[in-house]
Amino acid sequence: MINFTIEKPDTQLAATLQDKIDNLSKPKGSLGTLEKLAFQIGLIQQTCSPELKHPVNVIYASDHGIADEGVSKSPKEVTRQVIYNFLNGGAGICFLARQHGFELRIVDGGVDFDFPSIPELIDRKVRKGTRNFLHEAAMTEAELDQAIQAGADIVTDCHKEGCNVISFGEMGIGNTAASSMWMTLLTGIPLKACVGAGSGLNESGIQHKYKVLKQALDNYSGSTDVKEVMRYFGGYEMVMAVGGMLRAAELKMIILVDGFIMTNCVLAASRLYPAVMDYCIFGHCGDESGHKLLLDAMQAEPLLSLGLRLGEGSGSVCAYPIVQSAVRMLNEMHSFGEAAVTKYFD
Amino acid sequence: MINFTIEKPDTQLAATLQDKIDNLSKPKGSLGTLEKLAFQIGLIQQTCSPELKHPVNVIYASDHGIADEGVSKSPKEVTRQVIYNFLNGGAGICFLARQHGFELRIVDGGVDFDFPSIPELIDRKVRKGTRNFLHEAAMTEAELDQAIQAGADIVTDCHKEGCNVISFGEMGIGNTAASSMWMTLLTGIPLKACVGAGSGLNESGIQHKYKVLKQALDNYSGSTDVKEVMRYFGGYEMVMAVGGMLRAAELKMIILVDGFIMTNCVLAASRLYPAVMDYCIFGHCGDESGHKLLLDAMQAEPLLSLGLRLGEGSGSVCAYPIVQSAVRMLNEMHSFGEAAVTKYFD
Repeated sequence: MINFTIEKPDTQLAATLQDKIDNLSKPKGSLGTLEKLAFQIGLIQQTCSPELKHPVNVIYASDHGIADEGVSKSPKEVTRQVIYNFLNGGAGICFLARQHGFELRIVDGGVDFDFPSIPELIDRKVRKGTRNFLHEAAMTEAELDQAIQAGADIVTDCHKEGCNVISFGEMGIGNTAASSMWMTLLTGIPLKACVGAGSGLNESGIQHKYKVLKQALDNYSGSTDVKEVMRYFGGYEMVMAVGGMLRAAELKMIILVDGFIMTNCVLAASRLYPAVMDYCIFGHCGDESGHKLLLDAMQAEPLLSLGLRLGEGSGSVCAYPIVQSAVRMLNEMHSFGEAAVTKYFD
Repeated sequence: MINFTIEKPDTQLAATLQDKIDNLSKPKGSLGTLEKLAFQIGLIQQTCSPELKHPVNVIYASDHGIADEGVSKSPKEVTRQVIYNFLNGGAGICFLARQHGFELRIVDGGVDFDFPSIPELIDRKVRKGTRNFLHEAAMTEAELDQAIQAGADIVTDCHKEGCNVISFGEMGIGNTAASSMWMTLLTGIPLKACVGAGSGLNESGIQHKYKVLKQALDNYSGSTDVKEVMRYFGGYEMVMAVGGMLRAAELKMIILVDGFIMTNCVLAASRLYPAVMDYCIFGHCGDESGHKLLLDAMQAEPLLSLGLRLGEGSGSVCAYPIVQSAVRMLNEMHSFGEAAVTKYFD
């Protein structure tokens, strides 16, 4: 696997930055999370006047061999159908991207379908879907490396085009199943608590999904080595997202984290390079059971809790105006001195 | 007090609207709160293709006699200073209003200061601050009526200019104290649980505030008649907000609810006319202790929980993009049929 050089943001600026925030004309701390975000973003960008530029939502898409076991409400064909829906502007993420000025970048990481050549669909197909991890590893080591590299390269391209804030989303029938495996193996939280309804399983559907995943866990070596867990359970889109996140942190970009699947990707990325967490803003706590547990285990504080469970980057893009508000607060609010307001606190 | 005619939204459209939402190309329910908002807004506007027009954030400002008892961290002069900060564009609400395209309307309902004539400051001053409710009623019946009328008239003006979504904010040193009195008397929740730090009291400051308010409660008749509670404890800005909310509901506008003080105004408004609740979208759960209790008592589900406690409409305006997302979802997302996606559910 390629190496990344990820530095924690320099904290020399911390006192100056906090002082600026505390001297804005408001009761100290009264803008709550906006103040924390402003501090984090100021440190990432090493300035008291940060800027958000050219936001991009990358969607990595791929199919999963495990989908053959009936672990999802949706048939596999939905992966490719939804990609067309992205390209036609009709999917959930599309109106959110238009609303908040995000460029959408759709990456075929391993969809089980032969697309014609489409300029807006970035072809990084590793293979037509992963192998079925009930019986064997989802991918080879070479495929893992290829996916990490491909995911990272996409982010490098975005950065070159002026992007400094990036959201990651996914599409792939079966990927909540794969994510549950990552979660249980990387956190030690029992599998049962990591398995949820995905795109809409009922109670007996969730029971079946759990049984399949429990069997897969029993068949597996039990290794908790991060790369081995990623490789064995896939999928390509998830591994690409890990690569993308690591490159984004390396380039000191702000990373907007979406739902259950992308949070598992941050989990894996941060086990490889802990400093990646300093660049992450968690968009929301989704409705997939397990997401809240995982966020808590990572001590992540999501901005929204709106019962979303769509994926695609919908939760992270939906939360973006709050990030913009934090930056505007720093750049536009008057200080007590400028405003000639008696300081509200000692 | 003037009468209002407030109708519950007609529910004839409910099935058609829910059908449209359920047939958008996503797992059923997967856009969580956005789906609930879309349903509410569709019913308010009686259409499956709602529109948000000319959003306004009205800030009613006034001073409070009770501020003489040292119940706030901030001196009374801060009320007028912050009004200048609003007018100069430097306050917290200003950057949020610019970000989300809100017109700001600043109303002097009873500030204890002689402003020069300022075109951007709407003069509806009832009196230079309310009376001190530790000793006497904050306002007379005639003043209550005048404030209700003035608050409502502002909203009529906004509506005439094309506004169909309105946020209410406030500025008034001492108004968390007044709000605590409304809350305890109108909900029956013990006073202690209704009293908080306001603009930043420490533990002993909160203790003092509680003692003053407890004494005020003991001195009071104990009547829980809504108008009497409003009149006795004020303030003018709060009564104006009640009038504004009632007029907004009468005109079938969407009401965006801010923090602790504005939630108390919805509480009072809804005790007078219960149907007002159908027009309300609760922007956030603020950091003022008591706000969450009050929201729970009202069965209100706020969109955000970001630890804000600034007032001014900051929480409701900050939440506005989520309301916009809900409307865009209805208008822009493709249905399963349009998208040629296999329906994810039965």
